[in-house]
Amino acid sequence: MNFACARLQHWLSNASDVEGFLVTKKENVFWLTGFSGSLGLYLQLRSGEKFLISDARYGERVKELAKENEMEFVLLDDEFRTNFGEKIIGSLAVEDSVSLAQLERVRKLFPQAKFNPQKNGLEHLRRQKNGEEIKLITIAQRHVNNLLQPFLKANAKDGITEKELAFRLEGALRHKGEFELAFPSIVAFNSNSAIPHHEPNGTKLKVGDNILIDCGVKCQGYCSDVTRNFAFRGVNEEYQKAHQNLLQIQEKALGKFVPGKKAVEIDEFVRRELGPDKEFFTHSLGHGVGLEIHELPRISKESESILQENEVVTCEPGIYFPGKFGIRIEDLLVIRKDKPEILSKLTKDLVVL
Amino acid sequence: MNFACARLQHWLSNASDVEGFLVTKKENVFWLTGFSGSLGLYLQLRSGEKFLISDARYGERVKELAKENEMEFVLLDDEFRTNFGEKIIGSLAVEDSVSLAQLERVRKLFPQAKFNPQKNGLEHLRRQKNGEEIKLITIAQRHVNNLLQPFLKANAKDGITEKELAFRLEGALRHKGEFELAFPSIVAFNSNSAIPHHEPNGTKLKVGDNILIDCGVKCQGYCSDVTRNFAFRGVNEEYQKAHQNLLQIQEKALGKFVPGKKAVEIDEFVRRELGPDKEFFTHSLGHGVGLEIHELPRISKESESILQENEVVTCEPGIYFPGKFGIRIEDLLVIRKDKPEILSKLTKDLVVL
Repeated sequence: MNFACARLQHWLSNASDVEGFLVTKKENVFWLTGFSGSLGLYLQLRSGEKFLISDARYGERVKELAKENEMEFVLLDDEFRTNFGEKIIGSLAVEDSVSLAQLERVRKLFPQAKFNPQKNGLEHLRRQKNGEEIKLITIAQRHVNNLLQPFLKANAKDGITEKELAFRLEGALRHKGEFELAFPSIVAFNSNSAIPHHEPNGTKLKVGDNILIDCGVKCQGYCSDVTRNFAFRGVNEEYQKAHQNLLQIQEKALGKFVPGKKAVEIDEFVRRELGPDKEFFTHSLGHGVGLEIHELPRISKESESILQENEVVTCEPGIYFPGKFGIRIEDLLVIRKDKPEILSKLTKDLVVL
Repeated sequence: MNFACARLQHWLSNASDVEGFLVTKKENVFWLTGFSGSLGLYLQLRSGEKFLISDARYGERVKELAKENEMEFVLLDDEFRTNFGEKIIGSLAVEDSVSLAQLERVRKLFPQAKFNPQKNGLEHLRRQKNGEEIKLITIAQRHVNNLLQPFLKANAKDGITEKELAFRLEGALRHKGEFELAFPSIVAFNSNSAIPHHEPNGTKLKVGDNILIDCGVKCQGYCSDVTRNFAFRGVNEEYQKAHQNLLQIQEKALGKFVPGKKAVEIDEFVRRELGPDKEFFTHSLGHGVGLEIHELPRISKESESILQENEVVTCEPGIYFPGKFGIRIEDLLVIRKDKPEILSKLTKDLVVL
């Protein structure tokens, strides 16, 4: 049994109120089966039986995947309900990411089953990464590490728009299609950087502007994520000081990412260190990264998570002064026994382009 | 009131069992408000009051949007529930695309409200496009019309992989960031074209291969969608005949896209015309296109839709012979009074590159 199915099996052996888990979320189906289509379902029963369910449009590959993983392939066609669905009796766990419409559809496919929604789905099982997963995230992050600064040196020119710089960056990140984007890249000049969720627009780069870049790629489904800040041919003193101050806080926070630490305490630590500026830190400190760009554990004011070894998370304090500038310093790291392993090995010093 | 809010208001005036509609789905929020962030909510009450709800991370733009649309902006912060949520009393419609987790969150934000899920959310209101929407879809499709054939003539070379050709195509489609992709482009060579949902991989182009390309871009959120088939330096007779046959059927089907027609009848017509080959047509005939690449109306065996004027839909019969080849001929069209207006004005003849 692959490690993901084994983790789910272990969970099922302790979940006395369900007979199995019906998995609908694409990333979870991929994690368990390797199948990346959007119309797949996966069912694992307490008995250990495993079923990969998909329609004919995905061809033979899905049948091969089922075979490799010792799963039974079940065709999702007009006869599915009679041939298979009706035979599944009892209570099945489902992810709470399921939509009401999907749940309705699934109820029709499995008329004898009762569905038991699970908070955070089975995402908690995906928190601690295995060696292969960490390798893929490392490859994805290393690609960005190698590329970002030389790319900007070559492409950040007077008058280029955020949109065009983002477009060129994404072309470079995708590297002839070898990598996918983990999320739409954020490229923000000057006061646009004060909007944490800024979408690149027609704003032109001018001498003296600061630049915020937040980007990541996927390697075989696994994401990377990093944010760095640059200045274009000159730095304003206020910005430089704010950057230096935030960097010192970020560095101190990094040391706290160790197994057993409550995530909320690191978030609180950063807000305390920011002092009166904490009101300009308008998002959470970090998040898990894996098959999804935002996954468990959350590292925020509301987080109930305790950090565990081999979790991959971001540490990304930010300060955003509306109408002036924003800075976010984001590292990607693996929680290890004594101190975190930083994957985003790009300089955090303010680079003047 | 903008046309989208007016349509919703008209719906509310007939829905006696709800006091308002709480909109959570990103595309619906965008349609009603112009706000494109992922953390926005929109509430419209039967009384006509309109509220755009979002957190601080989106900056001033969202407040401007609210103002332009005569909506009240409500900040989604720690005090939201007390300041606003608790005051909303009674039954609210929600889309059935809402996940169980989202619904739980929304219940906490609006503790006095009762939620009433609506089948297909408010997507039925988005079916008939207005002039501006059709204009944007036309621009998106025209961009692909102008680009696809010259692009392939320049880039389809012996030995290029599907992945690299798709990567280059997407770069061209995005046109310096002016357009976004409507969906990941499908580029399939040879027998890979027999898998309708094929993902471009390392397969290399060889002389005599057929090529299937399915791609689209977005213009200000509105999607285009087209599929064409090519042959690379030579055509196999069986493929050519199959293409010709499918094209004749597709052309006949196009004429049936008129207001008042039952969608299921056009799907049935195509299957009838295919004769014994219908078992190799493994997907539905078409779908609506707009802010989502697949939206109402569905044009399938199960569809209950009746076509209406100014709907934008695809007509895309396909045949897929496993291990051999697949062909899909997909047009994008606007339903008009007498005959459809075809937006995908690229030749449908088999082009030999």
